[in-house]
Amino acid sequence: MRILVLGADGYLGWPTSLYLSARGHEVGVVDNFARRQYDFEMGVDSLVPISQLQRRVQVWKEVSGKELACWPGDLVDPDFTHRVVQEFRPEAIVHFAEQRSAPYSMIDQKHAVYTQYNNVINTINILYAIMDVDPSIHLVKLGTMGEYGTPNIDIEEGFIEITHKGRTDVMPFPKSPHSFYHLSKVHDSHNIQFACRVWGLRSTDLNQGVVYGQETPETSLHPDLATRFDYDGVFGTVLNRFCVQAVTGHPLTVYGSGGQTRGMLNILDTLACVELALEHPADPGEFRVFNQFTESFSIQQMAEMVVDQYSGDATIEHPPTPRVEKEEHYYRAAHTKLLDLGLVPHLLTSSVVRSLIAVCEKYKDRVDPSAILPTVNWRETSSSLITAGSHGPSATGVGDTESAEVN
Amino acid sequence: MRILVLGADGYLGWPTSLYLSARGHEVGVVDNFARRQYDFEMGVDSLVPISQLQRRVQVWKEVSGKELACWPGDLVDPDFTHRVVQEFRPEAIVHFAEQRSAPYSMIDQKHAVYTQYNNVINTINILYAIMDVDPSIHLVKLGTMGEYGTPNIDIEEGFIEITHKGRTDVMPFPKSPHSFYHLSKVHDSHNIQFACRVWGLRSTDLNQGVVYGQETPETSLHPDLATRFDYDGVFGTVLNRFCVQAVTGHPLTVYGSGGQTRGMLNILDTLACVELALEHPADPGEFRVFNQFTESFSIQQMAEMVVDQYSGDATIEHPPTPRVEKEEHYYRAAHTKLLDLGLVPHLLTSSVVRSLIAVCEKYKDRVDPSAILPTVNWRETSSSLITAGSHGPSATGVGDTESAEVN
Repeated sequence: MRILVLGADGYLGWPTSLYLSARGHEVGVVDNFARRQYDFEMGVDSLVPISQLQRRVQVWKEVSGKELACWPGDLVDPDFTHRVVQEFRPEAIVHFAEQRSAPYSMIDQKHAVYTQYNNVINTINILYAIMDVDPSIHLVKLGTMGEYGTPNIDIEEGFIEITHKGRTDVMPFPKSPHSFYHLSKVHDSHNIQFACRVWGLRSTDLNQGVVYGQETPETSLHPDLATRFDYDGVFGTVLNRFCVQAVTGHPLTVYGSGGQTRGMLNILDTLACVELALEHPADPGEFRVFNQFTESFSIQQMAEMVVDQYSGDATIEHPPTPRVEKEEHYYRAAHTKLLDLGLVPHLLTSSVVRSLIAVCEKYKDRVDPSAILPTVNWRETSSSLITAGSHGPSATGVGDTESAEVN
Repeated sequence: MRILVLGADGYLGWPTSLYLSARGHEVGVVDNFARRQYDFEMGVDSLVPISQLQRRVQVWKEVSGKELACWPGDLVDPDFTHRVVQEFRPEAIVHFAEQRSAPYSMIDQKHAVYTQYNNVINTINILYAIMDVDPSIHLVKLGTMGEYGTPNIDIEEGFIEITHKGRTDVMPFPKSPHSFYHLSKVHDSHNIQFACRVWGLRSTDLNQGVVYGQETPETSLHPDLATRFDYDGVFGTVLNRFCVQAVTGHPLTVYGSGGQTRGMLNILDTLACVELALEHPADPGEFRVFNQFTESFSIQQMAEMVVDQYSGDATIEHPPTPRVEKEEHYYRAAHTKLLDLGLVPHLLTSSVVRSLIAVCEKYKDRVDPSAILPTVNWRETSSSLITAGSHGPSATGVGDTESAEVN
C-alpha cells in the first residue's frame, strides 16, 4: 500500500513510518518540524537524543534497504498539501500532523489560536486535497479520547444511539473536551465527518488515549532511528514524567487527588492500531471512530506502579491541579472495535514499567529537572513558559495533572 | 446598559444596534465591512440601497439624538479586539461578526478556510478579551439552527438529557451541520462552552433560524438608516428570494422536492430576542442556548405563500438541489426558552408576506436576475461565482435550496 504519513518526524509519526515501511508498504513522510521548534521555544529537549529527519531516512535506508519519500513542508499551505498528495498518490494518509499538547494550547491566546488554526486548517486542506486528487484515499486521522471529556455515562466509539421522546437516531457522541487543543480535535472530527457525508470520502478517526513507551523493533535498530521521549511539563506524558521524577530523585507529582482516569496504550499498540485501520479501511462515505486505548488507569495508580517498580526510593506528592477538571469522576469507555479487528494489546505490566524506567536511567544525565514542573494554569489567560536555566519551581505554585496527552 | 455590537454594519447587526440605542442603551458598533467586500467579490448589491456606516451613525444622531461609538476594524486582530473591549468596557457584547452564508463557505477551499478561520479565530479573540478585561461581560453570540442538521429526534435547546446503560447525564446536543459555515458555528459553540466552564464566563448562544423582513421602526425613520436586503444566490435568504422572483416575473425556484423544513423568524423578533437575552443574562459560568425562531415551514410552503399573496402571476419550479441535504425529513425543534422570557412572535401572516413583496416591488428596477441562480454546488470542491453581467443561468444547471441562511 502507498501510505503518506503526515507529522512523520514526531514521537509517534516516526515509529509508525518505520513500522509501515518494514511491513513492506511504500511510505512517504511529511513534516514541518514544528515539534522541534516547540523545544526551542521552551528550552527543552527530548530525553532520548534524536537525529534530524533526513539523517533518519538515510539510516533507515542503510539498515532496511527501504526508501522513505521525504516532503518537508507545512500542511497549512494549501498548495504544498495538494502537491504532496498529487505527486505521491497515496492509497491512505495517516495524519499525525497536529499540535498535540493540551498545556501548550493553554499557554496564552497566541498559543490557543495557533493550535486551532494549525490543526483545523491543515485538516481542511487535507480533505480538499483528497477530494481533488482521489476521493478513495483513506484518511486515518489521529484524534484523542480527550475529545469526550469525562461524562457521567459510558463513552461509546464516536456515535451513540439516542432514544428521545419516542424516536431514535444514531448521533455523534456529545463532546466536552478539556483544552483548546482537545477542542481542535473535536472541530476536526466534525469537519471530517461532513466531508465524508457530502463528498463520499472515507475516514477513520482514532480517538487515542495517552501513549507510553519509547522503543519499537524498528527504532531500536540504530541510535539514529530513536524516537523522542518527552518528560517536560508541556509535552511530556504522565507515565514518562513519573519515571523521570523517580530516577532523578524527585517526588512523583500527582496533581490533585489523582482520581483523574484516562485511557492508556503502549506505543507498540499505536503502530498496530494504525495498521489495522489501514488494512480494514472505512467504506466510501463512511466516517468511522475507533477508541484507541487498551487500559484505563487513574493518575494515582500510575504513580504507585512507578514507585513499586523503581529499585530506589520514590515518593508521591499531591500539589493542586492547574487544570480545570474533575479529580474524581465516572469513566468507562468502549474500546472493542480495534480488538474485533485483531488487536492483541501490550498491557502495562511490571516489566513494561521497568523498561520505561530503564530508558530514563540511561539518559538521566540529560534531565533538566526545572523543565518538569509546568507553569501553564488553565484558569489564567497567560502563563509564562519554563525555560531551561531560568527558574526554580513554577512561580504560580501549580503543577500539571497528566501533563500533555499524546493526542 | 453598555452594549458592544460586533458586525454592526450587517443585515441584522445594524437594526439591532439602532433598536438597542433607541431603547436607551449605550451602544458601540464594530465592523470590518467584510460583508460589503463580499458584494464586490460577487458583483451583487443589496436590493435596498444602504449607506456607509459613518453616514448611518451620523443620521441616527440627527433623528434620535443618540450617539453610537464606532470602531472600524477586524476582530481577527487580537490587539484590535482587546483594545475595543478595554476602551468601551461593555456590560454585554452581541456577536454578529461572522461570515454567515453556507453557499459562500462552499464556493471552494479558499472560502471554506476563510470562513472557519474568520469565525473561529475572532470568537476566540473575543473570549480572551472578555476574560482579560472583565469576565462578567455577557456574550450574546449568534449561532444557527443549522448547527443541529436534521436529526430523526426532537431538537432541544443546546443540551439533551441522555440515559445510557443505566446512567444519565445532560450533554451538548449532538450536531450534524450542513456546510463549512454551519460547522464554524458548531466549533464556536464548543469553544465558548469551554470558556464558560473553565474561566467562568457567561454566554448565551442564540441558535437562530432563517430571518425574513427588512424594515424595523428604527430603520424606517430615514432612507440612510435602511438595512440591507439580499436576494442573490449566495447571501439571499429563501423568502426574500421568492419575493424577488415573483415581482420580476421569474418562476420561484424550489430546489428538490421542497420538503426541506427550517425554523424561521421575523427580523423584528431577532431584535426582541437579543434584547430578552441581554435583559436576562446567563449566570457566571453558564453557557446557555436558546433556539431563536418562531415557526417552521418547508421551502415548498413558503413558495406557495408568496404565490398566493402576489397580485400577479407566479409559478413554482423544482430544479435539483445543489446541496447535500435530506429533501424530506423529520423536523421538530424546541423553542420555548425565549417565549418563557416574554417573546411575543411576529408570525408570517399574509400581510407580512405582502409587505415583503412590496419592498421588492419598490426596488425591482435594481434586481439583477442573473444574480439569483447560484452556482455553488456542494458536491464540487470549486464552483465559479456568478458575477453581474457575465452570465446567464448557472453552467452547472443547479440551484440553491434555501439560499444562504442568516446565521
